[in-house]
Amino acid sequence: MSTTVPDRYLPLLEAPSFGYLGTVRPDGAVQVNPMWFRLDGQTVQFTHTTTRGKYRNLQLDPSMTLTVSDPANPYHYVELRGRLVEAVPDPAGELFMALQARYGEADPQPPADVADRVVLVMAIEHVSGQ
Amino acid sequence: MSTTVPDRYLPLLEAPSFGYLGTVRPDGAVQVNPMWFRLDGQTVQFTHTTTRGKYRNLQLDPSMTLTVSDPANPYHYVELRGRLVEAVPDPAGELFMALQARYGEADPQPPADVADRVVLVMAIEHVSGQ
Repeated sequence: MSTTVPDRYLPLLEAPSFGYLGTVRPDGAVQVNPMWFRLDGQTVQFTHTTTRGKYRNLQLDPSMTLTVSDPANPYHYVELRGRLVEAVPDPAGELFMALQARYGEADPQPPADVADRVVLVMAIEHVSGQ
Repeated sequence: MSTTVPDRYLPLLEAPSFGYLGTVRPDGAVQVNPMWFRLDGQTVQFTHTTTRGKYRNLQLDPSMTLTVSDPANPYHYVELRGRLVEAVPDPAGELFMALQARYGEADPQPPADVADRVVLVMAIEHVSGQ
């Protein structure tokens, strides 16, 4: 069910741009948040905690959609639609620190809420963009 | 049911940044697209056409959520949740041209698909951000 991202979109996803993650709230409304992320083959990884809204949303509805634009040309973007396949405990904050480094922090440190940290793993099911 | 955007978020919405609009697809998955927009009091206006996916989505589920970040500091953002209240025909492409001008086009022109153009009017029901 998962799919590979076409090569033409890889530079968008490899750059340390913020993505915009859409999830569905319990009331059916959409939630859209700017997020750090990392592409890992046919999945996307996010650092998150078990105490926040998006985690609650994804327990009820695993749909996730990530859209990333080229900051130099926002008409060029990719949308990855998929679903949560795993929430892996990350009690040392390893992904958080890896993403700090990816997004420019010279001295990554674990976050204050490290005990609640999880890696959200999104399987990519559909790719579109322009 | 509509609400006013707190003053602290107005600079984010007045700048000609792209917003990220979340809608719900007929299959229940979220769609997230970069969009031009314009704040108009307690509503947000978008130029769109009646032939595209987002229009179809909104006919089935009027939920819309727009997230806008500060390009200079993407940790600063606002999320506007609401719903489609009107889709007003815009056969002269007036909003399209107004948004072209807002987003830096010196000589706005009507688009090729002007006959299908509509103004999507989203009522703002909830504001959050950081």
